Amino acid sequence: MEETIHHKKAFGWAARDTSGVLSPFHFSRRRTGEKDVTVKVMYCGMCHSDINMVKNKWGVSTYPFVPGHEIVGAVIEVGSKVEKFKVGDKVGVGYMAGSCHSCDNCANDLENYCPEMVSNHGSKYQDGTTTYGGYSDIMVANEHFVVHVPDNLPLDACAPLLCAGITVYSPLKYYGLDKPGMHVGVVGLGGLGHMAVKFAKAMGVKVTVISSSPNKKKEAIEHLGADSFLVSSNQDDMQAATSTIDGIIDTIASPHSLLPFIGLLKNNGKLVLVGLPEKPMELPLFPLVTGRKIVGGSLIGGMKETQEMLNFAATHNITADIEVISIDHVNTAMERLLKADVRYRFVIDTENTLKSAFEI
Amino acid sequence: MEETIHHKKAFGWAARDTSGVLSPFHFSRRRTGEKDVTVKVMYCGMCHSDINMVKNKWGVSTYPFVPGHEIVGAVIEVGSKVEKFKVGDKVGVGYMAGSCHSCDNCANDLENYCPEMVSNHGSKYQDGTTTYGGYSDIMVANEHFVVHVPDNLPLDACAPLLCAGITVYSPLKYYGLDKPGMHVGVVGLGGLGHMAVKFAKAMGVKVTVISSSPNKKKEAIEHLGADSFLVSSNQDDMQAATSTIDGIIDTIASPHSLLPFIGLLKNNGKLVLVGLPEKPMELPLFPLVTGRKIVGGSLIGGMKETQEMLNFAATHNITADIEVISIDHVNTAMERLLKADVRYRFVIDTENTLKSAFEI
Repeated sequence: MEETIHHKKAFGWAARDTSGVLSPFHFSRRRTGEKDVTVKVMYCGMCHSDINMVKNKWGVSTYPFVPGHEIVGAVIEVGSKVEKFKVGDKVGVGYMAGSCHSCDNCANDLENYCPEMVSNHGSKYQDGTTTYGGYSDIMVANEHFVVHVPDNLPLDACAPLLCAGITVYSPLKYYGLDKPGMHVGVVGLGGLGHMAVKFAKAMGVKVTVISSSPNKKKEAIEHLGADSFLVSSNQDDMQAATSTIDGIIDTIASPHSLLPFIGLLKNNGKLVLVGLPEKPMELPLFPLVTGRKIVGGSLIGGMKETQEMLNFAATHNITADIEVISIDHVNTAMERLLKADVRYRFVIDTENTLKSAFEI
Repeated sequence: MEETIHHKKAFGWAARDTSGVLSPFHFSRRRTGEKDVTVKVMYCGMCHSDINMVKNKWGVSTYPFVPGHEIVGAVIEVGSKVEKFKVGDKVGVGYMAGSCHSCDNCANDLENYCPEMVSNHGSKYQDGTTTYGGYSDIMVANEHFVVHVPDNLPLDACAPLLCAGITVYSPLKYYGLDKPGMHVGVVGLGGLGHMAVKFAKAMGVKVTVISSSPNKKKEAIEHLGADSFLVSSNQDDMQAATSTIDGIIDTIASPHSLLPFIGLLKNNGKLVLVGLPEKPMELPLFPLVTGRKIVGGSLIGGMKETQEMLNFAATHNITADIEVISIDHVNTAMERLLKADVRYRFVIDTENTLKSAFEI
């Protein structure tokens, strides 16, 4: 199966239907435009939203679908008007492929909230052709949506910062949960959650992890540096922690009860949802009104903030905890990811394992 | 039926059971303590929450229940250590009768969020006795929970400011919706909603009223000064107004869909709930996350802010639009209030119509 709209040959793995099973896929990408860089994809992280997209859980997927938006690689070609990058640069490409560049959001470095934002997979470029993600050998991207990877960050463990990292970094900043001395909760200790613990600790706040898995306690505290750990099903411990937390980053991607987490918040506390469960959840009103609490959301981050996040990560030696896999194991990894059986992010070694049938 | 724990005879109207029907009730109040003022109740507003309490909709009511927390009257006695008031002062008493005075909330003039906050009806004073509200002839209140009514405010039309007024004034300030040039929505044009329009206009913001009743449009715009009006069931108009509003004060007291209102918000917009529907509502996640919007709550306001609100009202000549009734009509008024058949607040003329059987 091959698609031939463009002239630059590309190869990746795609889902062909809602089964979500990925298999080799030959396609094409546009030539490197004036403002484009072409990137050899070296590593690509596997985000939980990749599963939702390959299985069309949000009802917006089209097939063939090439996932992947936590991309790290090397620039192999630059357009004539590219200003920020040169061949050989180590770069990152995240969720976004484009935006309108003229709305208030874009003017304020919030391309991620632009109504015309184009994502790097399952979306349409301005020319109407389909975007294919980073489970592939090359990416062609407008330089505005490409960031520099600081030298001291290992490329594989840096890849998840492009989505998981910025998705938790941005709300910690926007909702003012980055003030030293504050107490921040992190609900869910997966790809996003473990990054939230690392960033929040580096910001100087006290971190409590709230998880349904008691067996994550030791690692959360000893390895990730969390200050305390609550098992969400332990009602005594949850009760004892009532009204002690300033803000919570809730990373759970499936529908769940918000009431226990709202209860942990102090008055004026903030519960920030960064997951996207496919169904609405119940909003408990009394604690919101009687404690002047808020429930808010946040979606990745703008490009300027993404670069800021990477620089912050470099300064504080923050990377993701990863399990590197070959592309041949991607379907197995999807199944394990569904069971949260990974600490904490799968990263596909595309450079060394993604071989086109033409090459073999 | 008489209660004789205290020594100061009082008379009001009470509900005796969940039917919520009010009838005359002789009871007693404590003697004027060192820090207390005793107030002759002249007017008392009827709040929608009075209905929820008399009918035990929130499951916390005890009977006999004397409602009323929008109280305006004259000081008739002051305790030996009272500093702020003298006999003859025109004063207001709102929702609160007490708080702990030692928690962070109290220290920050947020007694309304104190976990030990005592309300003026259906609650317990620190001495364990029941609080009875303002549908009565006198109130005894700690001076901390009493405010001065500015001279230029008419006493009857001022009464609803003590709850309806502060309940919408406080979130306009806290959520930063008081900046000239902003666009604020007000959902529901009842007692709270019409006050929100008046305060928001006085703050210099553009106001759109969103209501299910098309017949309120003329009055909202011509009389209350709203800039525009949306009928919530008119999907074309609602769609056209998508992403145009900075923040919304949602005053609806029954369960309702939040999605249409969240859709009206710009990115980073704020939907603030000040009503207390008895059931949880559905929280739509996608628009919260993809627009970094928040849903928050707010509960009346602290005493310092309540005085500030009254002073602001005096400066801008803001009072409630009221229908003054005699206490004999209180049950009929409750029924009309349930049908939203009042523009916009009933105020009981307690001074002239509340006569004890002993007096007749």
